[in-house]
Amino acid sequence: MAPSLEAMEDSTAGLPLKPNLTKINGVAAVSTLELDRASQHDKVLKVFRAFVADLCQQFGGGHPGSAMGMAAIGIALYKYVMKYSPRNCNYFNRDRFVLSNGHACLWQYLFMHLTGIKSMTVDQLKSYHSTKTDSLCPGHPEIENEGVEVTTGPLGQGVANAVGLAVASKHLGATYNKPGLELVDNMTYVMIGDACLQEGVGLEAVSLAGHWRLNNLCIIYDNNSITCDGTADVANTEDMNAKMRATGFNVIDVLDGNSNVSTIVAALISARSSDKPTFINVRTTIGFGSLKAGDAKTHGAALGVDDIVQIKKSFGLNPEEHFIIPQDVYDFFDDIGPRGEKYEAEWNNKLARYEREYPEEAAEFKLRVQGKWVDDWKKYIPSQDSFPTAPTATRKSAGLVGNPLSENVKNILIGTADLTPSCNVAYSNKVDFQSPELETACGLNGNYSGRYIHYGIREHAMCSISNGLAAFNKGTFLPITSSFFMFYLYAAPAVRMAALQGLQQIHIATHDSIGTGEDGPTHQPVELAALYRTMPNTLYIRPADSEEVAGAFTAALSATETPTIISLSRQNLTQYPNNSSRDGVTKGAYVFHEVEDFDVTLIGVGSELMFAMETKDLLEKEHGIKARVVSFPCPRLFEQQSKEYKRSVLKQSARKPTVVIEAYAAIGWERYADASISMRRFGKSLPSKAAYEYFGFVPSEMAPKIKCLVDEVKRDGIEILRGDFRDLNGYLGIGFEH
Amino acid sequence: MAPSLEAMEDSTAGLPLKPNLTKINGVAAVSTLELDRASQHDKVLKVFRAFVADLCQQFGGGHPGSAMGMAAIGIALYKYVMKYSPRNCNYFNRDRFVLSNGHACLWQYLFMHLTGIKSMTVDQLKSYHSTKTDSLCPGHPEIENEGVEVTTGPLGQGVANAVGLAVASKHLGATYNKPGLELVDNMTYVMIGDACLQEGVGLEAVSLAGHWRLNNLCIIYDNNSITCDGTADVANTEDMNAKMRATGFNVIDVLDGNSNVSTIVAALISARSSDKPTFINVRTTIGFGSLKAGDAKTHGAALGVDDIVQIKKSFGLNPEEHFIIPQDVYDFFDDIGPRGEKYEAEWNNKLARYEREYPEEAAEFKLRVQGKWVDDWKKYIPSQDSFPTAPTATRKSAGLVGNPLSENVKNILIGTADLTPSCNVAYSNKVDFQSPELETACGLNGNYSGRYIHYGIREHAMCSISNGLAAFNKGTFLPITSSFFMFYLYAAPAVRMAALQGLQQIHIATHDSIGTGEDGPTHQPVELAALYRTMPNTLYIRPADSEEVAGAFTAALSATETPTIISLSRQNLTQYPNNSSRDGVTKGAYVFHEVEDFDVTLIGVGSELMFAMETKDLLEKEHGIKARVVSFPCPRLFEQQSKEYKRSVLKQSARKPTVVIEAYAAIGWERYADASISMRRFGKSLPSKAAYEYFGFVPSEMAPKIKCLVDEVKRDGIEILRGDFRDLNGYLGIGFEH
Repeated sequence: MAPSLEAMEDSTAGLPLKPNLTKINGVAAVSTLELDRASQHDKVLKVFRAFVADLCQQFGGGHPGSAMGMAAIGIALYKYVMKYSPRNCNYFNRDRFVLSNGHACLWQYLFMHLTGIKSMTVDQLKSYHSTKTDSLCPGHPEIENEGVEVTTGPLGQGVANAVGLAVASKHLGATYNKPGLELVDNMTYVMIGDACLQEGVGLEAVSLAGHWRLNNLCIIYDNNSITCDGTADVANTEDMNAKMRATGFNVIDVLDGNSNVSTIVAALISARSSDKPTFINVRTTIGFGSLKAGDAKTHGAALGVDDIVQIKKSFGLNPEEHFIIPQDVYDFFDDIGPRGEKYEAEWNNKLARYEREYPEEAAEFKLRVQGKWVDDWKKYIPSQDSFPTAPTATRKSAGLVGNPLSENVKNILIGTADLTPSCNVAYSNKVDFQSPELETACGLNGNYSGRYIHYGIREHAMCSISNGLAAFNKGTFLPITSSFFMFYLYAAPAVRMAALQGLQQIHIATHDSIGTGEDGPTHQPVELAALYRTMPNTLYIRPADSEEVAGAFTAALSATETPTIISLSRQNLTQYPNNSSRDGVTKGAYVFHEVEDFDVTLIGVGSELMFAMETKDLLEKEHGIKARVVSFPCPRLFEQQSKEYKRSVLKQSARKPTVVIEAYAAIGWERYADASISMRRFGKSLPSKAAYEYFGFVPSEMAPKIKCLVDEVKRDGIEILRGDFRDLNGYLGIGFEH
Repeated sequence: MAPSLEAMEDSTAGLPLKPNLTKINGVAAVSTLELDRASQHDKVLKVFRAFVADLCQQFGGGHPGSAMGMAAIGIALYKYVMKYSPRNCNYFNRDRFVLSNGHACLWQYLFMHLTGIKSMTVDQLKSYHSTKTDSLCPGHPEIENEGVEVTTGPLGQGVANAVGLAVASKHLGATYNKPGLELVDNMTYVMIGDACLQEGVGLEAVSLAGHWRLNNLCIIYDNNSITCDGTADVANTEDMNAKMRATGFNVIDVLDGNSNVSTIVAALISARSSDKPTFINVRTTIGFGSLKAGDAKTHGAALGVDDIVQIKKSFGLNPEEHFIIPQDVYDFFDDIGPRGEKYEAEWNNKLARYEREYPEEAAEFKLRVQGKWVDDWKKYIPSQDSFPTAPTATRKSAGLVGNPLSENVKNILIGTADLTPSCNVAYSNKVDFQSPELETACGLNGNYSGRYIHYGIREHAMCSISNGLAAFNKGTFLPITSSFFMFYLYAAPAVRMAALQGLQQIHIATHDSIGTGEDGPTHQPVELAALYRTMPNTLYIRPADSEEVAGAFTAALSATETPTIISLSRQNLTQYPNNSSRDGVTKGAYVFHEVEDFDVTLIGVGSELMFAMETKDLLEKEHGIKARVVSFPCPRLFEQQSKEYKRSVLKQSARKPTVVIEAYAAIGWERYADASISMRRFGKSLPSKAAYEYFGFVPSEMAPKIKCLVDEVKRDGIEILRGDFRDLNGYLGIGFEH
């Protein structure tokens, strides 16, 4: 049910557009529409392209080619199509824009300047690639800077983020909009180059966008046929349009994307009235205007002084002048500021009406706008006495702790990479996030107000889409994802981007050690913790029982600018209601079992803590050795504690070793321990218990090894272990061993 | 140019096939062809499915559903279509088979048993999910076991591996085949479930397969419409066939994949005569025969005793009997062994003729068959005196060392994720691996004998395809890949699979620290080394200058069952012809600068080694402190050295601290050092030198900090640092800071 052309016209920025849509080969193709501004566009394009060339030239680097190629697309978007407010970049119902080909950032920065974002001065533009440490023009767009929705750079991430941004507005719209009072109905536009739909994460994301029928999403493909290696044909000759149609997209071709602004405008406007997400395939010329136009040489290097002289001459500009933006070019954009203010004023009026007519919903919505929770999460965290005392898998405990939260707190959008039953994340009365049309088409239960997301077997897109959800408006959503811990390796580039951007989210990562068992070494993540324990601004927490799971959720929910991975067991674990402490978890490590005149400290982690406790008993009973036990779910949190607290937990002494027991590679534990019982190599396909036995995680085997170490240190002092960290159950070598 | 039906018939295993191909909606659809064996198939299918159900039931776990659903596909493949030799699984020109949905491994194990692979006994089958530590039936197929081409499990990897296997045979065929003497012309078949083409790595790989027109590749899609979360529709409603056609595949539908063996056979045979890779979309029913057939409950759990009784009754089998394979079912497969021997004998004859007619090529080919190099790599590693002494980026050095190797040693297939100019991997006279048809179609230079691979911007598929190349026949190929180090995070799941399988390969990972500069924190891999230094059976080497690059290549080439990442700088680095040692690199660490009566040991790594050297000078000059310097390119290799060697390098002492200088997070260095100058958070978009300065990697700032530490340790002893590893330039915390 496409709206009339008149309606489409109304929905633009109010310009005299006369779109003339035709169908060619079943594809909506867009022919010229009259803007009567061809000469203005020509001037802006020339000034824009020369300015970009100047910016790259000044420091002899950067990415001029695509920024110059995409100039006409930028005029269409920033001048005519996008609804936003450069005087308040955070206007809530703004159209979102993502530059997935982030290396073309000069394009965005320069349009931000032209449309009047105050912080984006010419001086800032000139700081691109400079040594200025507070530049607003880094080599890729960064979320901290005004007017940037998400940090991009790693290819494919931006397009998946954009899917998340579109899900966010679909969901808010379905949840809060009322007839005639559409509080959230913004579009999400994302620019991509050739790479973003070569990258798997982008391909996963567009599959979901098509499935969800996100007609508020528009992908603009800067199809300049050039990548670093030359013609894009060297690695890609597929039929992109057919592929995107098969993926569920409305596909529009624009054949002249270098200068024909009006055609691009028409395509962008028609995207708004599609019942599917739209893919606009715009043919452009990389480095348009340069002597090297159409060549990969314009991609990642300055063009050179001579070429820039040539460009300016051919454009009718003065080659002696640099960084020149004539007043009429500024004038061309001077309606944008007031128009943005008008959008915002209209929206504020709408919200005021909404408040009068729907006061309850309005109160909730306003909390969401402020990035606040609509309910107090603390009250949903169960108390310790509600937990079962029988052995319980922490993935089960995570359901006990997390599912009431998911059920009650509307900020949460929780999903899974096709592991609902294994990860225990389905809460009571969950409604799936789905296109309501699929209810008819496939009998699916769900609609856009649903908060449970089936991501399919797409871990990477799951986490990258979650970044978009979290970035829509910080705090409006808390995205939770779930999968096996091992497969957060697939998702790692997206988790990294969340950490870099300070986006809160929780990843429910189950099946987290060799206790995973029969699925074997491909599913046993012995080295992955090292990555997440090292990644800045990331919490990786391995709770040991239900009480510690409550602590892990508390830490995760409190870390409002940090992604957290809660790492959980598949297998049942002993519960320690008398030792275990949620507060202890939030400190990263705590004394789990204390003993006077101890001989050794055992550090136990997650599902291996119970082995530490059993070994402690055996050491005392069979060897007369007194062991204290420290539970250590999160080194990163422990590092934040005071020196005094750390000392009180570690109690290091010149004659008493500390031994960590964890079924992961030991790297990182050298900071707190002198020896480890850990994994030296990949795991093995065996039932959980048998796998632990196979690798020596058996109290009766561990106790004598620890006893030897205790004796040695008692005799020779702890200094013998300096530079000689002991891996008590083997040797971390290379060479293929199975 | 499809061959005649007669020719197709000849190309089968010699059975009386009468394929009747029709076209429906432009798709090659396959109607029934007569095998006159319907009743035999029926019997085999019933016995097969009951056996699978029994196997899962005995230990109350496993994945019965898809193994039962795919039974008819298995008969088609193993009995009629695949050319292989169960009596010699390593027969060189065998058709390769990959089970990308590796959880369905029982399906493969049982067919391996039925077709006569000796090691695969009924007892072995029964060891699935048992505590038997030498089981040949782990929870996912593993490469060490006879008859398994690659280890699978992590979804999407297998299909990308299969693309690699198909590239391998295309390349060998193009290189060595002569008219009438096709030494390598095998097919590669890969089974996938719903997941493998939801996962990004699978999607990246099929784009390349389509681009390369790998008509020796056949993907068989077990389309049972069920994933863990229920109907696959919850997360995927795209038009798979249309998508695969757009990707360059020949698409065939099989509507009854549960019982109609002959239709599947016809589809598989027609794949052989396609000029494109083939995608066969086979509709099956998960858990066929079970009361829960068609339900996700049959996917990952045993069916239950009652259901198995029901299955057997409805199949006309005795429900009291378990693990029964009647003789006539064995008989059905008894031609496979002799047929395989015949294939092999024919191939041996062909090779003998080839040796007579083309003795030179034959000698080379036979080396490849034996997994040997056709040339001595050692002679291509340049000597130290050939290197420039001016500051040089190690990415440049890697070109100096690696490119002569790539040029001369035919075992090498080197490629890039679209970073040919940045990674410096284009060797002289390179020929691209491309479909020769693209030369006509797009003017590309290249053919299937080319050894330079443009993978596009697909790091994950690049490494997963490399795994297939390496697994084709260990040693026949050495795959080399290249990208920025940061984007080996995208590829990490594939690198892990190489390490797990003992597959040698080299990854040229450039732009490896904050020295990468302007591209900013999205491109500066401060935490990624921790993953690769921890991953078992993986070498991560950071050389510091050209001589060390020669050492890194030497170590990588010598590690024949291990993937190596050679980590390289973008920026120029000081060369140390008098200190640097390639032999030192192969030991992981070595003394770079020695001094008597030293006060402190500085560990320098990769591009930061020169800072250690400069700081050493400054410490002596300005503070009267004597520092020795250790170059430490690879902790994993150092761990393999003797205790004596380690001590001689580290020279730890009770009054002398060791400080590591590296622009990465310090985790892991606590094993050898007492303090670090390292990265506490993500990097920053600044030019290389400015980025180092911003984070305090400046000798004049480092020297006083080190002096303080030296004084403190001199006064109070090294024990003050136990459990208190000093991060001298900051603090590794959480919280969003920029």
